[in-house]
Amino acid sequence: MSKDKKVQQITDMEVDFAQWYTDVVTKAELVDYSGVKGLFILRPYGYAIWENIQSALDAMFKATGHVNVSMPLLIPESLLQKEKDHVEGFAPECAWVTIGGSEQLPEKLCIRPTSETLFCDHWSHVLHSWRDLPFLYNQWCSVLRWEKTTRPFLRGREFLWQEGHTLHATAEEAVEETERMLNVYADLTENWLAMPVIKGVKTDKEKFAGAVNTYTIECMMHDRKALQAGTSHYFGDGFAKAFDISFNDKNNTLQYPHQTSWGLSTRIIGGIIMTHGDNSGLVLPPRIAPIQVVVIPVAAHREGVTETALKLAERLRQAGLRVKTDTGDQSPGWKFAEYEMKGVPLRLELGPKDIENNQCVLARRDSGVKINVPLDKLEGEAKLLLDDIQSALYKKAKKNLDENIYPAYSAEEARDIIREKGGFIKTMWCGGADCENKMKEIAGVSSRCIPFEQEKLGDICPVCGKPAGKSILWGIAY
Amino acid sequence: MSKDKKVQQITDMEVDFAQWYTDVVTKAELVDYSGVKGLFILRPYGYAIWENIQSALDAMFKATGHVNVSMPLLIPESLLQKEKDHVEGFAPECAWVTIGGSEQLPEKLCIRPTSETLFCDHWSHVLHSWRDLPFLYNQWCSVLRWEKTTRPFLRGREFLWQEGHTLHATAEEAVEETERMLNVYADLTENWLAMPVIKGVKTDKEKFAGAVNTYTIECMMHDRKALQAGTSHYFGDGFAKAFDISFNDKNNTLQYPHQTSWGLSTRIIGGIIMTHGDNSGLVLPPRIAPIQVVVIPVAAHREGVTETALKLAERLRQAGLRVKTDTGDQSPGWKFAEYEMKGVPLRLELGPKDIENNQCVLARRDSGVKINVPLDKLEGEAKLLLDDIQSALYKKAKKNLDENIYPAYSAEEARDIIREKGGFIKTMWCGGADCENKMKEIAGVSSRCIPFEQEKLGDICPVCGKPAGKSILWGIAY
Repeated sequence: MSKDKKVQQITDMEVDFAQWYTDVVTKAELVDYSGVKGLFILRPYGYAIWENIQSALDAMFKATGHVNVSMPLLIPESLLQKEKDHVEGFAPECAWVTIGGSEQLPEKLCIRPTSETLFCDHWSHVLHSWRDLPFLYNQWCSVLRWEKTTRPFLRGREFLWQEGHTLHATAEEAVEETERMLNVYADLTENWLAMPVIKGVKTDKEKFAGAVNTYTIECMMHDRKALQAGTSHYFGDGFAKAFDISFNDKNNTLQYPHQTSWGLSTRIIGGIIMTHGDNSGLVLPPRIAPIQVVVIPVAAHREGVTETALKLAERLRQAGLRVKTDTGDQSPGWKFAEYEMKGVPLRLELGPKDIENNQCVLARRDSGVKINVPLDKLEGEAKLLLDDIQSALYKKAKKNLDENIYPAYSAEEARDIIREKGGFIKTMWCGGADCENKMKEIAGVSSRCIPFEQEKLGDICPVCGKPAGKSILWGIAY
Repeated sequence: MSKDKKVQQITDMEVDFAQWYTDVVTKAELVDYSGVKGLFILRPYGYAIWENIQSALDAMFKATGHVNVSMPLLIPESLLQKEKDHVEGFAPECAWVTIGGSEQLPEKLCIRPTSETLFCDHWSHVLHSWRDLPFLYNQWCSVLRWEKTTRPFLRGREFLWQEGHTLHATAEEAVEETERMLNVYADLTENWLAMPVIKGVKTDKEKFAGAVNTYTIECMMHDRKALQAGTSHYFGDGFAKAFDISFNDKNNTLQYPHQTSWGLSTRIIGGIIMTHGDNSGLVLPPRIAPIQVVVIPVAAHREGVTETALKLAERLRQAGLRVKTDTGDQSPGWKFAEYEMKGVPLRLELGPKDIENNQCVLARRDSGVKINVPLDKLEGEAKLLLDDIQSALYKKAKKNLDENIYPAYSAEEARDIIREKGGFIKTMWCGGADCENKMKEIAGVSSRCIPFEQEKLGDICPVCGKPAGKSILWGIAY
């Protein structure tokens, strides 16, 4: 890695991970703070990452038969209150509009914290027959939750996300959908973002307000804390009954439909940063990097250097890569540090000597390794390297995950492991909320999920000593 | 056009255009009404039109060097008040958040009606040097304006739009940008939406709150009323001074930058409906139609019909068209009416007889003309027909526009023409606000724009009789 004033401005991640994170999001020009606490500005470079995630995910949604819609921003208080568990979960976090056009409103309106109630209200208007089902809807939007502590990407009072909402004739279909969409999230997270996931079910304590079941993908960050990266909820027919949504089946019998919702937000960008970043800044997986190759002419004043650099950039662009050429007046060293901070996977350096030798240099952001590449092999080599970076990032993150899941046989042991090493703890669990609360009290961990891939670590719950049929994962979560 | 119960449900457009419009937006399943007046639900088919517009426009923005960002939803009252003309224009229409997380907020927050103040606040943080300029930003989002009367697409309290915001080192560059983006809007509107436009400048009375100049594209609807389809504003350095945004130029002298903004909203979908629609429902320009060809098997129970229909649909899809096959259990007549209502440009009918003759039928939505097409020529014929429909729609709308602009030489004459024929009135104008107000009073028209293409209709203002150097366009506007 190149040494530069700019690089040295960021905090060492091993010394203060939280400060390192804040340094990266600001110095890589991902976000700016607005005048309202917890409402962040996504700057062009930060937003471009989201656009790439959006475009990958939207294609997956459409390939699985989903369509996009746009629901209103505001929910009347009476509508939010229709499903009791749901309103209990969300009402304390709502931002309320009370004045419209200089007049006090007769009923206050909540800025959507999530849109289940809006979808249900709409469906109650338009669902008539079994022919109308399933509804496989999604929307891209922002939502508001009036959180107390906030951090860019990880916890905002406003955040961008997508929320899928679907309605099905049968419970089986709805459960299938809930699983399908969790797998779509796992696909995106592992194969595009290079973040390994653990799939599982949330406990009742941690599930979504109003859901029968919440499925989750959980990731481990560089500091070994957990990040919930995406969730998919099965609602049964609870909302349908609360909102009086029904349809005539083929036998002309009135039925209640079954419902799901699923969401993934810009919080996952925080996950990318904390999974792959290093002390030079951001490290982006090539598949979602806004710039995959940055081309930097060295000794650009020498004849032919800038021209050749521009031509190579164009060749890479023609080969389908996202490329930027920096012909600005700063020094190459300044530029190297700048694009390392921004996590650009590959840097192409080209100087007069390189041109003489009919080659250029490709430098990897992940390992720092530099390779001389003959110009006639440029496109192929660049693509191979990008693929290799993508899988190297995944492997490194997978190693971090695999090496930091520890079995524990008492809450005290869990506490000691967490204090000493961090990571995830796996135990058996009786299924009781009391034991879950005790683990929080003693070891400071929350339950992350009951993994789909179950493991037999014994027969009893490590907290109460009663018979325990399932294994569960614990951690300290963002 | 096929006759069917569904078709006959909509009001005749020549009898009650407003009711016809409402019938079309609901029966074509574009929108649903939500529990809050003026906040509409864009259903999948309506939103898909917006997605196609978005994708065309976003590509044009990126081709002209713009990048997307995401700004906060909420504006603190004190921030909105920084530019005096701007706040005067927008404050009466604001929706205000006063409660967050069950606590009264110390300062009320406005849901963005437009985001100039947010962009300015951000730029005041990040602009330092001439090297940083220009900022060529855009965002896709929804905004709120607490209107009294509302109609789907045309006037919502919430609507989707894009708002471009740019900052430049010089006034010349900013003016150039303002013009460039108006031309991008004109390109989209004419070449994708088949709606001819008149480009011009707004009067001071009609310009955007806080702008030096507002450029506009004006369209004429089927009922000869005007629709402002997109606007582009030049701000000079007024906002920059109010928000203290400055930069060091190459000589290290402090300068104020110059600013633009430009917006186009879902209101243009209202324009598409009112430009091309007819008494069978929506008529969509092929370039933005969510479904370009609907394939309908006739006598689908007969051997080979559905299979062949699915194969033809797949061939059209492979040729790059957006295709839907309807194999549902309703009658072909029901389906014909359904997709006519939805404005699908081409219908492919295929029955046992057609298969025998190795052909199918392509029916045009715009003219109703049916053509027998040999199966081996299907892709080419479908594409030619779609191109022809696109240009036929434009020509028809252009004829309506050209034939309904009338010169007038007094406010009374303008009034009589408007009463008798509707359309646009062109007159000379002295430039005085009094005369503009008088035209409104007497003829009931507002100024649409001072067209870029000027015409000499005389030497004096038809209202005050004083010398008049420019021609101006009037109309009744949505």
